[in-house]
Amino acid sequence: MGKLYSMSKRLVVIGGVAAGMSAAAKAKRSNPEIEVIAFEKSHYVSYGACGLPYYLAGWIPDVEKLVARTPEKFAKQGVKALVRHEVVEVDYPGRRVRVADLEMGREFWQPFDYLVVSTGAKPLRPQLPGSGLQGIFTLRKPEDGVAIRDALRRAKKVVVIGAGYVGLEVAEAFRVQGKQVAIVEAKDRVLPVADPRISEVVQKELDEHGVQVLTNTTVEGFRGLDRVEAVQTSAFELPADLVLLSLGIKPNTDLAASFGVALGPTGAIAVDSSLRTNLPGVWAAGDVAESVNVVSKQPQWLPLGDVANKHGRIAGSVIAGLSAEFGGVVGSAITKVFGVTVAMTGLDETAAKLAGFEAKSVFIKSADRAHYYPDPHPFYVKLVYEGSSGRLLGAQVAGHGNDALRIDVVATLLHQGATVEDLRALDLAYAPPFSPVWDPLLVAANQAK
Amino acid sequence: MGKLYSMSKRLVVIGGVAAGMSAAAKAKRSNPEIEVIAFEKSHYVSYGACGLPYYLAGWIPDVEKLVARTPEKFAKQGVKALVRHEVVEVDYPGRRVRVADLEMGREFWQPFDYLVVSTGAKPLRPQLPGSGLQGIFTLRKPEDGVAIRDALRRAKKVVVIGAGYVGLEVAEAFRVQGKQVAIVEAKDRVLPVADPRISEVVQKELDEHGVQVLTNTTVEGFRGLDRVEAVQTSAFELPADLVLLSLGIKPNTDLAASFGVALGPTGAIAVDSSLRTNLPGVWAAGDVAESVNVVSKQPQWLPLGDVANKHGRIAGSVIAGLSAEFGGVVGSAITKVFGVTVAMTGLDETAAKLAGFEAKSVFIKSADRAHYYPDPHPFYVKLVYEGSSGRLLGAQVAGHGNDALRIDVVATLLHQGATVEDLRALDLAYAPPFSPVWDPLLVAANQAK
Repeated sequence: MGKLYSMSKRLVVIGGVAAGMSAAAKAKRSNPEIEVIAFEKSHYVSYGACGLPYYLAGWIPDVEKLVARTPEKFAKQGVKALVRHEVVEVDYPGRRVRVADLEMGREFWQPFDYLVVSTGAKPLRPQLPGSGLQGIFTLRKPEDGVAIRDALRRAKKVVVIGAGYVGLEVAEAFRVQGKQVAIVEAKDRVLPVADPRISEVVQKELDEHGVQVLTNTTVEGFRGLDRVEAVQTSAFELPADLVLLSLGIKPNTDLAASFGVALGPTGAIAVDSSLRTNLPGVWAAGDVAESVNVVSKQPQWLPLGDVANKHGRIAGSVIAGLSAEFGGVVGSAITKVFGVTVAMTGLDETAAKLAGFEAKSVFIKSADRAHYYPDPHPFYVKLVYEGSSGRLLGAQVAGHGNDALRIDVVATLLHQGATVEDLRALDLAYAPPFSPVWDPLLVAANQAK
Repeated sequence: MGKLYSMSKRLVVIGGVAAGMSAAAKAKRSNPEIEVIAFEKSHYVSYGACGLPYYLAGWIPDVEKLVARTPEKFAKQGVKALVRHEVVEVDYPGRRVRVADLEMGREFWQPFDYLVVSTGAKPLRPQLPGSGLQGIFTLRKPEDGVAIRDALRRAKKVVVIGAGYVGLEVAEAFRVQGKQVAIVEAKDRVLPVADPRISEVVQKELDEHGVQVLTNTTVEGFRGLDRVEAVQTSAFELPADLVLLSLGIKPNTDLAASFGVALGPTGAIAVDSSLRTNLPGVWAAGDVAESVNVVSKQPQWLPLGDVANKHGRIAGSVIAGLSAEFGGVVGSAITKVFGVTVAMTGLDETAAKLAGFEAKSVFIKSADRAHYYPDPHPFYVKLVYEGSSGRLLGAQVAGHGNDALRIDVVATLLHQGATVEDLRALDLAYAPPFSPVWDPLLVAANQAK
């Protein structure tokens, strides 16, 4: 008796980066009977987009290094991954998708039983005078990275618009490449998601590395003939051979919305804890989908690579017939700006108040090692907590090297619904090269009243 | 009306290092009416003994740098701290201690209302043939450090006996000073408290840095005329100009036991969560006192600087009339051996079984950053957990630089009584310079079945 092919189900994945390929691989691994096909419109699947700033810095020689697994490797695992294939329509009642083969210029219909929408997010690109000039880039895909690194060879003056995580990372990268770098930020400080005292630490690091920063400054347009020559700002005109727009991203929900997938209050796709959308048989995962914030209990859109991988793994498990639930997010993030590292988790005071908490906070300056150990660096901790109960709501830290990883202690406590008192009681690992005898987190907890 | 001096109470602290001076300072700060006197028999109060290996390495130029606060600074806070003063007798019924002024060669009685016993611990020193020779040291006090660094100037060949935390730290220090270094360890591997696979990582690092390691080797004696010339081992004779014994420590309980303070099962002083001993008015804190392990619920002797500081702070608070309770320990520890960092927390399989748990474990090798980020290092995680419930019982990690700080995530979960499933659900901070997209802890949790 032959294998019962008719009984096997087919999973189609739309978008083959972090979430999509995690779902594909996990579903196949957990249930080899499932046929898995992933369509990705770019040239690469399974790449680490978070690594693009380091590719721009020249620390990663070849953009293909960002790829975790090639289509050939996926094929060996029984997963069909097709690049340069864009899903342009979903016929949900007919359980099929229309796929455009971008290389061959042809289209075909692909039937599915299960569908994962992992179409990711795209950069915001304001329509301003001159915004169509050459030399103005966004950074999201490997192709963007290659184009920017190519243009960078002829550029001397680079302007980065937006001083968020990516803006700061690329500013460092351009500086590493020896360029003259300016950052333009509309808000009153760099890394506006951070506490002003932490922004100040980052600002100082940028100053020390010769990055020009214009805060409270908006971009009004771009000047140039074919190529950009200057950025026109509310302050003055900045000469520029290359401009990088890092004004944030938004989820690619158009395709999903077109066939009836419901979006949530954040504008990303609403999912349950198994990453199911409102439509039976349709999952959403990664940057296109929402998560639930464990602290606020509210939906949060957290388009980060690690969250995307988890989303994909959960969706793939569930599709394979396993039970799996996503534990939600607390909003942990970390970034490196030259020698400074900033990390945060949970809610800041504003988000806490929006979520109905009466928030208090404490901010301390400590050090990253024992007072006598050589080469010390300052370490800053901010804790946000509920005044009445002492329940921890969030934290931010800034330090040096990998020290900011200790944010994960607070992230862990947030998942557990723990208090400042619980933090104070922790037996954290101590040795002089790693922390003062009172860990900075404990110093902060001791000062939180 | 004058100040009612007669109403003020007097706290006497026996032993003025981490726990003692923390208790003294905290009591005075919290209740300025208390008169506080601390007696310390060495030349220094409030020093960081954990820093001594780094002093030996030459990274800390002056041993006085290890002192956090001098007696003069304590005096300004209203705390009297007397060095070279040894409490030689406690008349508990008479509420007074007999103090020997070691400089002046005189003695006096000092009355007290409250007493803190913080007499610390002392190195084990086996009585072996030749163990009284010059050039054989233990490392515990600043004076030991000064003597060793002095002797080191004339030494070329150094033998360290014992490959525990301190043995490894001093071996590195001696190597940094350009000495020929051998370590002799009776057990079958270096850092025997660690998993054999983690010991192997440390062994490799020692090999790469030219430290000779003899495991399964016992010391039988020392040869020399006045000064040590060789260490006689079960394997062969090792030439040595300087020997450092790091065979562990034991609590200095003699004085406490002499006036009726009860010891616990570990041999250190038994205390309650407020650091009270069995005798009213008498507290014990720091390396001389026990803690309770939160995981095993059993007393544990954990003679570490951070624990000592917490003990002292709690005892001082309670003496000042505040309510404060020590949250117990999970047994977190971290150490650096050249470029490798090892950290552990909670119970290993043996301890878990002793505590009545049916323990399982998982061991994984991951990396300390995204696969494409330059200069990666391996990162190892071992998780120990209860098979039936998935409850986390302990962990060990080995990595590079400060990465091993992520042990604190598991320490936090242990305090919370959390499970492998809870670990798996954590939203930990991710960026390519800091971890793979799946944090090594999550990789381990995903593999724990």
